[in-house]
Amino acid sequence: MARLALLLNRLPLLGALMVAALVTAAHGQSADPLPSWRDGAAKQALVDFVGRVTREGTLDFIPPAERVAVFDNDGTLWAEQPSYFQAAFARDRVKALAPEHPEWRDTQPFKGVIENDPEAVAAAGQKGLLQILAATHAGMTTGAFNRIVADWLKTARHPRIDRPYDRLVHQPMLELLGLLRANGKTYIVSGGGAAFMRVFAERAYGIPPEQVVGSSGVTKFEIKAGGLPVLEKEPKVAFIDDGPGKPSGINRFIGRRPILAFGNSDGDLQMLEWTAGGVGARFMDLVHHTDAEREYAYDRQSPVGRLDKALDEAAARGWAVVDLQRDWTVVVPPPARSER
Amino acid sequence: MARLALLLNRLPLLGALMVAALVTAAHGQSADPLPSWRDGAAKQALVDFVGRVTREGTLDFIPPAERVAVFDNDGTLWAEQPSYFQAAFARDRVKALAPEHPEWRDTQPFKGVIENDPEAVAAAGQKGLLQILAATHAGMTTGAFNRIVADWLKTARHPRIDRPYDRLVHQPMLELLGLLRANGKTYIVSGGGAAFMRVFAERAYGIPPEQVVGSSGVTKFEIKAGGLPVLEKEPKVAFIDDGPGKPSGINRFIGRRPILAFGNSDGDLQMLEWTAGGVGARFMDLVHHTDAEREYAYDRQSPVGRLDKALDEAAARGWAVVDLQRDWTVVVPPPARSER
Repeated sequence: MARLALLLNRLPLLGALMVAALVTAAHGQSADPLPSWRDGAAKQALVDFVGRVTREGTLDFIPPAERVAVFDNDGTLWAEQPSYFQAAFARDRVKALAPEHPEWRDTQPFKGVIENDPEAVAAAGQKGLLQILAATHAGMTTGAFNRIVADWLKTARHPRIDRPYDRLVHQPMLELLGLLRANGKTYIVSGGGAAFMRVFAERAYGIPPEQVVGSSGVTKFEIKAGGLPVLEKEPKVAFIDDGPGKPSGINRFIGRRPILAFGNSDGDLQMLEWTAGGVGARFMDLVHHTDAEREYAYDRQSPVGRLDKALDEAAARGWAVVDLQRDWTVVVPPPARSER
Repeated sequence: MARLALLLNRLPLLGALMVAALVTAAHGQSADPLPSWRDGAAKQALVDFVGRVTREGTLDFIPPAERVAVFDNDGTLWAEQPSYFQAAFARDRVKALAPEHPEWRDTQPFKGVIENDPEAVAAAGQKGLLQILAATHAGMTTGAFNRIVADWLKTARHPRIDRPYDRLVHQPMLELLGLLRANGKTYIVSGGGAAFMRVFAERAYGIPPEQVVGSSGVTKFEIKAGGLPVLEKEPKVAFIDDGPGKPSGINRFIGRRPILAFGNSDGDLQMLEWTAGGVGARFMDLVHHTDAEREYAYDRQSPVGRLDKALDEAAARGWAVVDLQRDWTVVVPPPARSER
């Protein structure tokens, strides 16, 4: 058994899960669906909720089609420090495009991005942010954008935890997504760009494009010379799926009230409130980043992923809070071969 | 057998389909998935396409998750004459609200609606249309709107074919939706309002809310006194899912290129072009309303559901065209008990 475990552990990605399943099978018990969750209240509450809503003939039973679970992405399904990963993409993209734009060397916010001067970028405010978005997320077809993001994910690595960004997913959340998908549907509802997330969401989380709700820009349908139909990404924001926008996004894209919502910041508060307001069994949960060693520790004062009002609200209303240090035995999946 | 058929035929909704299945089973053949489609090129092309994309190991094979089929609603899945059914809803709603708005008696476009004067309504143009939408589709919560539409569907009846509007669905299309759903996913992609369609789409077509893409208004998240979270429907258009908006809607909501698209008017042309532009096996189809007796006959000159450019394009590119009179043995489902 030990040798088999050793062998399987050397396989990328699924090794740990397979070992857990095999070990449990050898002992004749049913497999633990959440092996990276430490036994305790946070894990038990989730398992209990799934049990309650799936038990037919009880008051808490919810039909499978209505079992919609929504997850924030940044800080909930993957990490978000020291800056949102999509911001890292935009930064890298500005640098890659800089040789074609010599004027950027003297123009903010681009000058600040190129010179690694976050204060200058911040000083350019909302207008500067939109300029960066226009330069990095528009002026190309949807297909071209997908290829650019895919190429970036292959080469870029997180500055502190030396891995591709899409391997900085939370292993315990992958397990939870699997458990919920065996019993219903899982959606991402994120302030990040839907087009950006869809490039990796299926591979990284098992969440298909049609279950990714996010912010989006305007696209324009055109027939190119030669008859090729394309969607051009325009430098115009169509929808911001953050804060109070999340319930609107859920309503517009899913058209059903979720029964479970998982977030990690104040930008998720309204999504949890909207979920909590539904009739029948409901589950609201927050990831609290408390582990500076294995990942990051931050909450009320963080400029990225601030968790302040939502933490108070969770305490007042009895929503679940996952303490990363206390509740998770593993944070990121075991390294793939290419990462060792 | 004949007596059983008679008995089953008296049952609403599923009678005809069940008889077809039983008769076929009695003859030891596999059931015809499209019993209301007359044998011919239109039916054969659809059945062949499903066979091709589902046969593993062939060049045309498409994995199940990528088998996305999109359908226009008005004129494709249900009728749309003498006016879009959602327009009939808005008209009835204005009349129902008129006693609370005495000022409407002297104000266009409301005066025209109340007095059944479509020319006066048309004269109020785009601005008048938005005023009617604001009065009938906004100023309430999403939940209240759903109840209003559901109540209207229970009481309103089509002016010529005396039935509830959501029973004026095309029986052959219900069968096609069933065939495609057994092999992939079916979506509505309509210029109509997503919120309006979601009230009946699951019951009428078996299409769940999350697979209904349509036009939408802005919703605003609010916490009411007493802590109740609501989404208020605001009098602002968020997205028009028609014409060139349909490829954008498909991209934003589904995030995958469809492999099959079915429409019936010039407003569906870009959706069919976008679908045709994908790599691999593709199927584009149009309903041509040619049957004034059983339903309606209209195309190039119709103010509602004009089919002109798309019909030429279909001929030029070899897209399928369903001739309602020639290809469908039945148009609407057999009457339910309440309709006889």
